[in-house]
Amino acid sequence: MLDLKSIEKAQQRLQGVAHRTPFSYAPILSEMSGYEVYLKKENLQRTGAFKLRGAFNKIATLVENNQKGGVVAASAGNHAQGVAFSAKHFGIEASIVMPDSTPLTKILGVKEFGANVILHGANYDEAYAYAMNYAKEHQKDFVHPFTDDEVMSGQGTVALEMIEDRDDLDAIVVPVGGGGLIAGMGVAINALNSNIQVIGVAAEGAPAMKNSFETKVAEGSESVRTIADGIAVRDASPITLEHIIKEVDSLELVCEDEIAAAILFLLEKQKVLVEGAGAVGVAALIHGKLDLPKGSKIGIVLSGGNIDVTMLSLIIEKGLVKSSRKMKLSVVMIDKPGSLMHFTELLTTVGANIVQIGYDRTSINLEFGDAVVSVDLETKGVEHQEEVRTILTKHGFGFKELH
Amino acid sequence: MLDLKSIEKAQQRLQGVAHRTPFSYAPILSEMSGYEVYLKKENLQRTGAFKLRGAFNKIATLVENNQKGGVVAASAGNHAQGVAFSAKHFGIEASIVMPDSTPLTKILGVKEFGANVILHGANYDEAYAYAMNYAKEHQKDFVHPFTDDEVMSGQGTVALEMIEDRDDLDAIVVPVGGGGLIAGMGVAINALNSNIQVIGVAAEGAPAMKNSFETKVAEGSESVRTIADGIAVRDASPITLEHIIKEVDSLELVCEDEIAAAILFLLEKQKVLVEGAGAVGVAALIHGKLDLPKGSKIGIVLSGGNIDVTMLSLIIEKGLVKSSRKMKLSVVMIDKPGSLMHFTELLTTVGANIVQIGYDRTSINLEFGDAVVSVDLETKGVEHQEEVRTILTKHGFGFKELH
Repeated sequence: MLDLKSIEKAQQRLQGVAHRTPFSYAPILSEMSGYEVYLKKENLQRTGAFKLRGAFNKIATLVENNQKGGVVAASAGNHAQGVAFSAKHFGIEASIVMPDSTPLTKILGVKEFGANVILHGANYDEAYAYAMNYAKEHQKDFVHPFTDDEVMSGQGTVALEMIEDRDDLDAIVVPVGGGGLIAGMGVAINALNSNIQVIGVAAEGAPAMKNSFETKVAEGSESVRTIADGIAVRDASPITLEHIIKEVDSLELVCEDEIAAAILFLLEKQKVLVEGAGAVGVAALIHGKLDLPKGSKIGIVLSGGNIDVTMLSLIIEKGLVKSSRKMKLSVVMIDKPGSLMHFTELLTTVGANIVQIGYDRTSINLEFGDAVVSVDLETKGVEHQEEVRTILTKHGFGFKELH
Repeated sequence: MLDLKSIEKAQQRLQGVAHRTPFSYAPILSEMSGYEVYLKKENLQRTGAFKLRGAFNKIATLVENNQKGGVVAASAGNHAQGVAFSAKHFGIEASIVMPDSTPLTKILGVKEFGANVILHGANYDEAYAYAMNYAKEHQKDFVHPFTDDEVMSGQGTVALEMIEDRDDLDAIVVPVGGGGLIAGMGVAINALNSNIQVIGVAAEGAPAMKNSFETKVAEGSESVRTIADGIAVRDASPITLEHIIKEVDSLELVCEDEIAAAILFLLEKQKVLVEGAGAVGVAALIHGKLDLPKGSKIGIVLSGGNIDVTMLSLIIEKGLVKSSRKMKLSVVMIDKPGSLMHFTELLTTVGANIVQIGYDRTSINLEFGDAVVSVDLETKGVEHQEEVRTILTKHGFGFKELH
């Protein structure tokens, strides 16, 4: 059963285990958007994501029913950590099935909690199928990441906290992948105050739930590819879809660039680290996808913070280019002594710092006697980049900008 | 006057202006260190750093004394933002002098608050001298970043909040640059509970206060160079030194690598962005520089979060190499078809992902017929790197590791 009562019951179970994460006013986002924006920081939750809530509530109910034979889950992400943490808490065995190619850091993140890790399958679907079978064969309980009433009830507790903290919200914005979080939260929100709009945000690269929401029929997508790996779900589940059709007012999509910009924004302006899935709500806000009256009070869920720092480096790099703080040029010059010096002199004149440079005179695209220099510059913004273009053009350097 | 009363007065003035920042338990740091660790998150303070407190308190007292002719400060950092924010709050004029080379983002960060920015001088000292003169000439009030009782009183309010939140702390760890923060906090701490140890942490690259603390005479340092730019102060001030000698129990130093590792740790494990100066306390903790009995309850001040993301990218990059998640190799191979294929095959076998590669056969260090390949690999940890070394060696590839 998923209803307000089951969610309140979950809240009791989570007391003293899950952090009551901050739900704090975001002045810069508010000023930018014309709304009054509050951020629910589930990235600061234990294990780094809200998933702990659902997994813990599920395992707690198993333990209450004396089903202590161990749990099985398929996940290389936040659900895995939530299950492993919760199983450890109750002293029961957890087996987590992950695809063969799972990075060591994710394996260790789960082993830390004493869980048994089984590497199986070339992708998530294969790991999932194996985990289902494994659970059946070994008579263990399978903990689904979202199509489970107790899991959804646990996730719904996020909404209880938000509404307890602020009883005047006009809308709550929630990331959508499999839909467990928004299903649980939607039930809680509509039970407590149906005036609050429930807005979901999914990634363009994983549109199954968005498409299903429109056609009202659970659909799959051919392929899934997004930096928001926490919501990279291929097939919509009819169970969460039913709740979502009933409880959710609108469902928006954001693209990869918008997600990346939101991650960078939250890092630079809010000083918090959020993973791709956790940033989609802010991405929708920043890019004008929320259609609400000016001054609306909006709560946005930052669902998790478990992003790989290598990925973060790439996002920063792309973000710097997009925000005109980095400029990548390919410049053709005459291959003779002094050419490069002249070029670097010009850059010094306009105060553009070189951070990487390559020199090639053997490219088949070049005339004899020419060389091509590829250079990355640190720049101070749009106007500064215009200065760079102007001075290079004025001194006869031909160049292409790489994006 | 700097005493408990002046600090409490500052706290009243800051009510409703400065955020009461979270002071939260850090489970992973506690487990790692054997202490009970709490983090005071001044990186989430308005303007991104504690500096707002001191600047606001100072300007509030000026306004109370009807000195509304405008304020002047020299800073390209957090003090500048604190002064600009506070002046705007009271509707008085602020002029901020910054060195000529100040990045545009820092200029804009201050202009956002309506402050007047004056670019002057090749470095901070020149900007500072100009600002002092400018204030005198234009009969404006100069707001010093630390040698000012009202500024130090404002910073001291950080300690009041920490002790109000937890009355059982054994030690409080504070970043030290000019010493304004630790002077104010030290006075508050010793007035309220002199059993709490006051521990300062400075950067090895800016050791003036540490040296002065030992010799009891204010000293300067020849040069200052640290990624912790918020505490990159060249000369110790006799005024803060006097307080520090009286109030501080010990003063530790951390090196650049330790600061970088702490920034990365806080980002990955705590999901918060902290600047270099803000990370020195955690750097000291992680690297065993705090000499306290097991189980001690420690509050560490994360003083600010204003780090340039370009710098952050570099820190992540170095952190990945240091933590064995990235490996940089220079490999010599025979310059013939198939060599590179054989090499990349071996890397595939052990599952090491190539993220950058360069090929050079013209280096004068090479024998004829040899080529050198420089390659960056994503690796999964110490053991995985050992696998890479083993397989390359077994197949006759000579290589050097670059750090």
